[in-house]
This record gives sequence, C-alpha cells and structure tokens, in this order.
Amino acid sequence: MMRGRLLVNRLAVLFAALLAGVLAGPPVQAEDGYDLWLRYAPLEGEALERLRAVEPLVQTPHEGDPTVEIAKRELIGGLQQLRGIPGPPDPDGTGEKANFVLECESPEIAIGGSFSISRIGDATQILAGERIGCVYGVHALLRELGMGRALEDIALASAPVMPLRMLNHWDNPDGHVERGYAGRSIFDWWHLPQKLDRRMIDYARANASIGINGVVVNNVNARAFMLEPRYIAKMKRLADAWRPYGIRLYVSARFSAPRDIGGLATADPLDPAVAAWWRAKADEFYAAIPDFGGFLVKANSEGQPGPQDYGRSHADGANMMAAALGNRGTVIWRAFVYSEEDETDRAKQAYAEFVPLDGQFAENVIVQVKNGPIDFQPREPFHPMFGAMPDTKLILELQVTREYLGQATGAVYLGTMWTEVLGAETGRGGTVAQIVAPAGMAGVANTGSARNWTGTHFDQGNWYAFGRLAWDPSLSSEDIAREWVSQTFVREAEPRDRIVRSMETSRETVIDTMTPFGLAHLMATGHHYGPAPWVCDLPRPEWNPCYYHRADANGIGFDRTASGSDALSQYAPDIAAKWANPATIDEQYLLWFHHVPWAHRMKSGRTLWEDLVSSYGWAELEIRARIQGWEKLAPFIDDERHTAVASDLAIQLEEARWWRDASIAYWQSVNGLALPPGARAPEHDLEHYRSLEFPEAPGQ
Amino acid sequence: MMRGRLLVNRLAVLFAALLAGVLAGPPVQAEDGYDLWLRYAPLEGEALERLRAVEPLVQTPHEGDPTVEIAKRELIGGLQQLRGIPGPPDPDGTGEKANFVLECESPEIAIGGSFSISRIGDATQILAGERIGCVYGVHALLRELGMGRALEDIALASAPVMPLRMLNHWDNPDGHVERGYAGRSIFDWWHLPQKLDRRMIDYARANASIGINGVVVNNVNARAFMLEPRYIAKMKRLADAWRPYGIRLYVSARFSAPRDIGGLATADPLDPAVAAWWRAKADEFYAAIPDFGGFLVKANSEGQPGPQDYGRSHADGANMMAAALGNRGTVIWRAFVYSEEDETDRAKQAYAEFVPLDGQFAENVIVQVKNGPIDFQPREPFHPMFGAMPDTKLILELQVTREYLGQATGAVYLGTMWTEVLGAETGRGGTVAQIVAPAGMAGVANTGSARNWTGTHFDQGNWYAFGRLAWDPSLSSEDIAREWVSQTFVREAEPRDRIVRSMETSRETVIDTMTPFGLAHLMATGHHYGPAPWVCDLPRPEWNPCYYHRADANGIGFDRTASGSDALSQYAPDIAAKWANPATIDEQYLLWFHHVPWAHRMKSGRTLWEDLVSSYGWAELEIRARIQGWEKLAPFIDDERHTAVASDLAIQLEEARWWRDASIAYWQSVNGLALPPGARAPEHDLEHYRSLEFPEAPGQ
Repeated sequence: MMRGRLLVNRLAVLFAALLAGVLAGPPVQAEDGYDLWLRYAPLEGEALERLRAVEPLVQTPHEGDPTVEIAKRELIGGLQQLRGIPGPPDPDGTGEKANFVLECESPEIAIGGSFSISRIGDATQILAGERIGCVYGVHALLRELGMGRALEDIALASAPVMPLRMLNHWDNPDGHVERGYAGRSIFDWWHLPQKLDRRMIDYARANASIGINGVVVNNVNARAFMLEPRYIAKMKRLADAWRPYGIRLYVSARFSAPRDIGGLATADPLDPAVAAWWRAKADEFYAAIPDFGGFLVKANSEGQPGPQDYGRSHADGANMMAAALGNRGTVIWRAFVYSEEDETDRAKQAYAEFVPLDGQFAENVIVQVKNGPIDFQPREPFHPMFGAMPDTKLILELQVTREYLGQATGAVYLGTMWTEVLGAETGRGGTVAQIVAPAGMAGVANTGSARNWTGTHFDQGNWYAFGRLAWDPSLSSEDIAREWVSQTFVREAEPRDRIVRSMETSRETVIDTMTPFGLAHLMATGHHYGPAPWVCDLPRPEWNPCYYHRADANGIGFDRTASGSDALSQYAPDIAAKWANPATIDEQYLLWFHHVPWAHRMKSGRTLWEDLVSSYGWAELEIRARIQGWEKLAPFIDDERHTAVASDLAIQLEEARWWRDASIAYWQSVNGLALPPGARAPEHDLEHYRSLEFPEAPGQ
Repeated sequence: MMRGRLLVNRLAVLFAALLAGVLAGPPVQAEDGYDLWLRYAPLEGEALERLRAVEPLVQTPHEGDPTVEIAKRELIGGLQQLRGIPGPPDPDGTGEKANFVLECESPEIAIGGSFSISRIGDATQILAGERIGCVYGVHALLRELGMGRALEDIALASAPVMPLRMLNHWDNPDGHVERGYAGRSIFDWWHLPQKLDRRMIDYARANASIGINGVVVNNVNARAFMLEPRYIAKMKRLADAWRPYGIRLYVSARFSAPRDIGGLATADPLDPAVAAWWRAKADEFYAAIPDFGGFLVKANSEGQPGPQDYGRSHADGANMMAAALGNRGTVIWRAFVYSEEDETDRAKQAYAEFVPLDGQFAENVIVQVKNGPIDFQPREPFHPMFGAMPDTKLILELQVTREYLGQATGAVYLGTMWTEVLGAETGRGGTVAQIVAPAGMAGVANTGSARNWTGTHFDQGNWYAFGRLAWDPSLSSEDIAREWVSQTFVREAEPRDRIVRSMETSRETVIDTMTPFGLAHLMATGHHYGPAPWVCDLPRPEWNPCYYHRADANGIGFDRTASGSDALSQYAPDIAAKWANPATIDEQYLLWFHHVPWAHRMKSGRTLWEDLVSSYGWAELEIRARIQGWEKLAPFIDDERHTAVASDLAIQLEEARWWRDASIAYWQSVNGLALPPGARAPEHDLEHYRSLEFPEAPGQ
C-alpha cells in the first residue's frame, strides 16, 4: 500500500517534472543535485501525518546570535519542507508553547560541538555546550526525521570524536583545481572580497550539516602571494561568512614565502629574521581573522621548498611556524614526502623521515599522514606511521576527490575504503581511528563549480561520508550510506537498500577493475586517467608504473619483505610477520608486499594469472549488474538525476573494459601467457591502448 | 495604484525569498539567473487578468515533430508561467477549440525562420515557412506578452535579416575558455558523448529564443585532435541535441591538421593529398552530422598555421577547404591577421592581405571581419574591409565576452557598441549592417559554467542583444535593452526605463574609464585585466600599449593620416577626408588617427590633457551615480540578483579609480604636466600601479 501511494506520488512528481522541465520553461524545482543531502523531500504516509501535527515553533534564549539563528532557521525550514508545507509556520501559533527548544550554552554538555536531543514534555529539546552544537543538533534531528523516525522516539547524545574535521582544497587561485573533476574552483578569488558568491554560504551550510569545522582554502602546492594582504582581505570575507557555521579558515603556506614575497634572502627556519617574518605574517592574519585556523604546509615534497633546503628538519620548520601562530592556531605539516634520493622504496620515506622526530614537534603542530604509504591508491595497507609516533599528534589525510578511483565517472562510494583504514589495527596502541582521534581527519575536497558540486551525484556521498566519519569513525559505511541515500535519493527501504548495497561494493569493483591483489600506481601519466602499466620511461623511477608492479616473465609484485625493500619492517612485528608470508597475507595486499610467480597458487585454487584475469572480468559483470539495477530504480528517482547517473555508469562500464583489456594486453606482452579458458581476448592490441590520448582529461 | 499592488507583491516575494533562501533550506525558485531572459515572471494587474482568461490550448498539424513540439511546449509553459499557474493547462479544456494555432509549413511564409503572428477569430495563429519559424514565433509572442502587451493587439511578421547568426566559443577541450570570465567551458568534452549535460539543452533553448542558428564549439586557436573520430562522436551528440532548436554545429579547424593528425608531410592547400584529406574529413563529419555547418579557420595569425606557410593565399586555403565541404557547408575564414613583418601599422594588415583577393573566394566561403581594424577595443572605427570587398561575403565578428571592456566586473551593455558599428556608413555601398546582411554576424560567446551563464547578470543582456541584432540589425539598442530588462528584471515602466537608461550609457563609461578619444590597447599584458599604458618592452612592437598611444612629452596618438601610417587611405575617400582633419574628425576617433599635442584645443574649449583627465573623473562619477540608482531599485529586484549586481558595480568603481589614477600617473610621467585645477591626484605613485599583479585574473 505504501508502494502504491508512493507510485502515485511519483507519477505526480514525474508529471510535474515533465511540465516543468520539458513541457514548460524553467523548472520550478529542478533536481539538479545542488541541494545535496539537504533536500528535505516531504515525508510520506504516517511519518508525514505525524509531523504535520507539530507546528515548528522554536524557542531559544539566544535570539539574535548568528549561529543560533542559523540553527533555528535550518530547523524551521527543514521541518516545513519535511512537512510539505512551503513557507513559514502558522503565525497564529507564535503565541503558543514552543515545540522545539534550543539551549545552546548548557553547562551539562561539553563544548566542541556536542549536543543532546531529548523530549521534555511535549517539546523536543536540543542542548549544546556551545552554540555550534545547536547547529549540529538540528541537523542530527532533521536527519533522523528525514529517515522517517518519529519525533517522540528521537533521543540521542552525540559528541565529535575528533577535534579537527577539515577539508583541504587543492584549488589554485586561478580557479584550476588540482585533481578536481567537478569544474572550476568554488572560490572566486578574482571577485573577492567585494563579491561573495552565494555558494560560499551554501558550502558552509553543507559542511556544518555534517560537522566539518575547518577548511584549507588553497592547494598544498601553494603560491606564496596568497599570503599577501590583498589575499588576506579576500580570506577575511570568507572567514566572516563561515564563522557562524563553525568553520575556521586555514591557508596552505609556501615555506619559501619569506624569500618569495618577504624580501628576505633565506627561508631558513632557524634564521631569526625568518621567524620574525612569519610571526608578523601570523599577526596580519589574526588582525583580519581572529579565529584564523593556521597553516598547512607541504614541505620538501615533489619540488616544494622546505626546511631541508637549509639542512633543517621537518620539526625545525614546523616548530618555527607554530611559534609564529602561538596559541592562536595550528601548523599542519604534511608527511607526504618523497624524493629521488631514496632509491629503494618510495613507500618507506615518510616513516624514515618522520618517526625519528617523534616527540620533537611543538604542541600546536599536527603531522598529516595519508591513509597509505604511497598515494591514495584504490587500496593500500595503512600507513606505518600510524602508531609509530606516540608523542606526536597525527591527523589522517583522505582523498575525497577520486584521483585514482575513476575521477568523476561511475558511481563509487569511498565509505568502505575509509572505514577499512580507520578500523585497521596498527599493533601499536590501537586502530588508526584511535591513533588520530586526538587530532582529526582531513579530506581532499571533491567540490567544484558543477551544479551538483561534485561532478557526479554519487560523489556527494563521499563528501557526506567523510564528514560523518570525522565526527564518529565508529559509524559503519553502510549506515552512513543509508542516511545519505535517504536524504538524497529515496527514503523507502527497499529501493534505498538496493542503492546502499551497490554502494557498499562499488569501491571493491574499482580495485577489481584497476589494481587487484595489491597492485598500485598503474594509471596514465599526468592526468592519471586510465591505465598505463607499460609506462617505464619517466625520469624519476618512482614516477613509473613499472616501478610499482615490477612485472616480468617470471612474476609480478613489489617485494617489500626483508629480501626486498623491507618496508614491512616499518610495521609492528606481529603485523609484519603475518604479511611477510605469501601464504598468510590477506591476498588484497599480496602484490603490495610480494613479488610472486604468475603461477602462484591463490586461495581460490587457481593461479594468480587466472585470478587476475578473472578479477577484471568480474568487475565488468558487476558494473553491468549495477546498470541494470539502476534502471529498475527509475520509478523512485527523478528523471534528471536518474539519467545522469545512468550516463555515469555507462562511462564506468566502458572504462572498466578499457582497464581490463589494456591491462591484460600488457601483462600478456610481459608474461607471454595465454588467456585462461573462456576469457575474452582484449578488443585491441597493446599498441592501440598505448596510443590513446585524453587531452581533455581534467585535474592535472 | 499599480505601484501599490506591485509593492505588496514585492513584499510577498521578499517574504517568500526570506523564507526560502534564508530562513529555510533550499529555495523553491532561487533567482540565480540561470533562466536568463526566459524567466516568464507572472504578469500583474490587468495584463494578468486578461491572460488568465485564455487557456493555453494549442493546435498544430505537426504533432510529433521535434521542433514543433519544442515550440508548443515553450508556448504552453511560457503562458502558464506568465499566467502564474504552475503546471499544465486545464485538462477539461482539451476538447475545446484551440486558442493558439501553430502552422509551421505555410507556403505564405518564406523559409529561413520567418514567421507571422496574427489573430484568426478568437485564436492567435503563428505561421512559419519552416518549422523552426514556429519556435521563433512562439518566442516573439511570449516576448510581447511578457512586456505586458495584450494578446489581441499582437500582430507582427518577422524575417531574419541575416542568414547566419552564430556564436563562436573560444573554449578549449580541457575546459579553459580563452577570454572567458564566467567559469569553465559549458562543453563537457570529457564526458561526451555518453553524458549530455542538461545545460546543453538549456543553452540551445536560450539561443533559439533569440534566433541564433549556428555555434562554433571550439576555440579558433584550434587543436587538431578535435577533428578526430573520437571528437566527431562527441560533436554528434551535441548536434543531435541542438538540431530541433535549429542550431547547426560548426568546428574551428586547425589548418595544419593534415600534418598534425593526418600523417601527411604537408598541409599545402594545393597538394592533392591535402585536398583529399580534407574531403575525407568532411565526409566523416557529414556521415555523423548530416547538417554539419562547416569549418571556421584562423590562419596565419598569431602563430596559427595557414596557407601562407606554403606561399599560398588565404583564398587558396579557404577554397580548398570549401571544396571539401561542397554544397553541404561553409568555410568561415577569419580576417583577423597580423604579423611581425608589417612594421608600419597593424591596423592596416587585414585590409592589405584580403582586399586584393576580392572575387577569388568560392561561393561557400565567408570572410569573418572584426568590427574594427585592431581587436575589439572599447571603441574602434569600423573595419575598412567593410565595403571594400563587394564580391566577397563578409560576416561581422563581434566580441560578446568583454575582454577589453571590464571582463566580468561591472554592468556594461554592448548593444550601443554594436548598433554603432552596424549603423556606420562605409561610403562604399551602405552601412556595415547592409554589407554583412547577405552573410551574417558572429559573436564571441560570453558563456561559462557560472550559474547565471555569463558571470554577471548584466552580461546576459549582451548575449541577448547579440542575437536580437543578428536577427534584425535595425533594432535600436534601447528597444533591445527594454525587452531584455522586462524579461529579466522588472516589467514596470519606471524602474525598467531607469535600468535601460543606465545600460545605454554604460559602454561610454567604459571608454571614458579606459580609452577616451580614440585611445586603444592600453590594457595589461596577458590577461588584459587593468591598465598598463607603460608597457613597452614586449618583443613584438604591436603587442605594446606604447605602440598604440605613442605618447611623449609633445603629444599623444597614432598618426594614421598620410603623414603617418596612412591607414586612413583604406577608407572611402569622403570618410577618409573627414577623418584626416583633426578639426573635423569626431573626437571619439581623434587619437586613433592623429598624434596631437597635449595642448590640442578640443571642441569643449579645453585642452586635450584637460579633457582626458576630465573624462576619467566623469566616468567615476557616472559609476557612483549608477550605484546609487541601483540601490534605489532594491524594491523591484530580488535580493539575490540585486546584491550581486551591487557587488559588480562596487568592483567597477574601484577599477575605474584604478584606471584613472594609473593612467594619469603614467601620462604625467610622460608629459610632465600638472593636473588641471581641482583634479584629484592619483592615490599612489606610478611605481605602485606598475607593480600590481593579478595572477587570479582569468581568461588568458
């Protein structure tokens, strides 16, 4: 019966959409994805009737406070939308007793964004220790209601597990986004500070709704001029706009700025003039932005300047900048370093450089460590630095933008990838989540000028999942997906859970498509779009896919055991012991740590070569199944977004075939093996795949 | 009384906007400008009552024809919106007699888009000679209704004056738009052909609404790979989507493509293998896109390859490619050429190269000539080629994107600029409009990924004006502005005409700000943002502002009389004679053609120096007045767009001061003159202005 009513509703919606979007001119409410998970589609059935009875009359002792006003407006607006009632609540009710109470300075609740939701008589009360907690509480309440829960049943208390929940934008001041696949930067530096794009408010609102509280506005490959007064004025406009949403602004700082723009002859961190320059620069920021978050620094990595240029350590550099900020802010220092000098194994360098510095970093320095030891590959083992620096605050860096996982094609959910690393036992003081909890999580943003923010609609779910996991890393990826789908696409259980199930397997499909069994870094040069395992002629060894797969006639994989680079020794002994043996290692890491023969016998009973070919084929079948499943969801999803996702999946299928065929053609050229019986031959020869060029591929 | 009712309506709208945009979550219908001039805001007062009485029941003998369906849907949708009735017309009325009849194959009407609108009894009939004429007719009808005219009073017949009404996109395949100030390209080559962005339909609809019928999808500085099959498939998807809207797709073709991608050793147009390659390439295009428009070519200009590389003429090159297309399409060959070799005067080169070729171009070649002889400066005299090639089809190239007129800041209407050149008497066979009428008009598009398409809301009006003038160059810029403002901002006469009046003077303000009295090319190097009259060290002489202004202690201006470069001799004798004399020339061209002393006595009675300083100051005052005027329009315009335009104007004022102060500081450094009494001194010294850098300025 629910289903029948839903279908009638759907038909009405489709009819309206037909008139609005096709028959008529501009649509009244295009489902273009701009609203993200904050659509607040009207409830249906009993849930609707229940909420209809509750007029959204809100009371708060903090009238006029900008943050509490945001909480209040969001609550009223969200409730009205869920109730299917456009416009304000019934004004006749304003004299009545409030149904919702926002108490945002409650001594019972900790500061830092914590809140509780409870029933007090007939009213729902949100308590928070500080004002932003009321914003978080309102979003939690609306999320529960949006999933169909009854107001009477909603009682919860929530506190953020991690203090820093931040996005890192790799956005350049000219609007180009490095590894951005959703158009241009959302930041309009050209027109700031005079003109503030509406997106800057909607962006803050979306972030606040999932608890994100910090934003680094520019690329870690930073331009020094963004520290100049002209840019501080632009950043001030952003910070002022974001402050009521609980978001602090951070800036990526180029380490050589004292030389680049400061007129100094050096950027040596131990030079007093350099320290004074940074101190004055920090003062300039704080004069404009009293809650300025601090500096993110990529130093001595991929050509960026750093303290090692002067024979100083990362700690020397970070501590000098941290002293400039003082207790006003934080230096976040990236551990993603690799240099040509280390000839043995790129995966080892960060650990080698940083672990000896444990305990030497200042109180307000955080070291930012990527989830794995290479670079955001579809699957990496957790980074060995986690657990190895007990006296240093470590923040976990994840990549929300899918540089290596299909960019902005297909539908790929990264929640499973992130819960995998967060749940990884380091063998040295707990899981990765436990180790980074005192610091936080940073995600490389996937936003852009695309109307739906993220290029594909499903990529919105990755932004959402990042925020939710940073708030509470114990959430399951499945629960997060369920929340997101309910708010974004469809609330009804059966179709919702079909989407959730396909999301849950989607990242594994990417691995099967590109880098099964611990392979890594097989993508094309530069734009990183598509397969290129054959590339072996780039000037630095570790830039080449062949450096990573090491395939030859005998076998494939990178020997990181004691007989090879011994990167395994960077892990806790019991973990290293388990992974050191090809017989006991989880096969998902096999070729990451071992060079094995093509005929290596897998747990399946087949050879590695057979399983490799099978993996590619399996991925293709899975995507086909996902396409068919998506087609069947047409009755539940608006035509505009349904069509867009169907196009994304069609592209993903083509790309999966391309990865499969190009990879197999290349491996065969190396190992000379015949295809396993029944396996389809690649559509073209290897030369064809090597010749493909994609000058339009974005994000380089 | 109208005013009172309007204000009540406005208050209701403001209240709704407050709730939708501020109080609540996502707005129901954000006024973000995406709908362009196709907003169809509900009518008010009597006009609303009149139209409410007319149910939009439409009859046509062409049911199912894609183009006529578009006309019908647009008519029904537009009428319903104007009537303030969301959704479809009353279904009970479907059996009744139609109130609107679309007859789209009428033998009474010429083909090419012509239409008539008349009353037949109680019905309104649109007649067209071919189907697209019904789309144009519907838009004309809605435009009239949208301006408040009564249905009974609307009777008109309209035929396009020019056959080709086209946009040229300087969009690169990687999404960067050369001289684009509204974000990234609207064309998503990466995801085409599988994914068609909704914008591609809305773009076609907007173009069709103003009669645009051709689109060149890529930059004239073309990449050869866009002629490869992979791209033809992408273009086919676009062409298929645009066909029902009457839009033909053209491509910019790199002249050296036979060498670049064809494997030939030469691109010599007289080489039979080259001709055969282009013939086969054209066949490939027509196999995919039967109505493919043809090739736009920038040859032997700014480093682009061309026939002169092989000692051949422009006609040799164009005719060879035209033969490849045959009667299926057109080669459009740009006359914008200049090369280092011509040391005397860049303004002369196009005429010198092309006029001797008059009569030598094939039937399906059109030569595309910019409005003036240099490059889209705020004011140039008309190009001397107009009228000088009676046996060659010439198309007029205008720049809709404001490369040299403020880019995407401020509010600048270019209608007045274009009617100025269209109305210019060439002295050789009529006005520019009359000379290009057999071919058409091409506009360099100002579209981008910005939500409002054009970066500023007012720049939408330039896209609109371009289309309307290409349809009918006899329209006045003021009438076009009135149409556009009615549809876009406000219909009520008094506020509407205040906006129209400020639009009408806005381009003159830009000239006063940047290049008064015939000055030109004073902008910064590269991005062309802001003033840099001091630049004099670029390797090619004609890249330097100093080449154009030739200012020294004695005077300023470029002598193009017989005593100088004699560019004047390229004009018809009576025009040349009038302009040869500083006493008779219109002072708006004075420094374009003459080098005169700073103390040259102007018609105002003051010296040139005094008038120059006064011009800058006047521009600043005008912008201040425009800002105040805009503030007063707040009650009539939605808050979102009102705020955005106010920000644009605030930036324009800052930029006007910058242009004034930097220019005066520089001229004073050259002429050593004191400021006229009462004139404000520049805020900073010249070194300051020379030191400014804007790495974030877009569009280079």
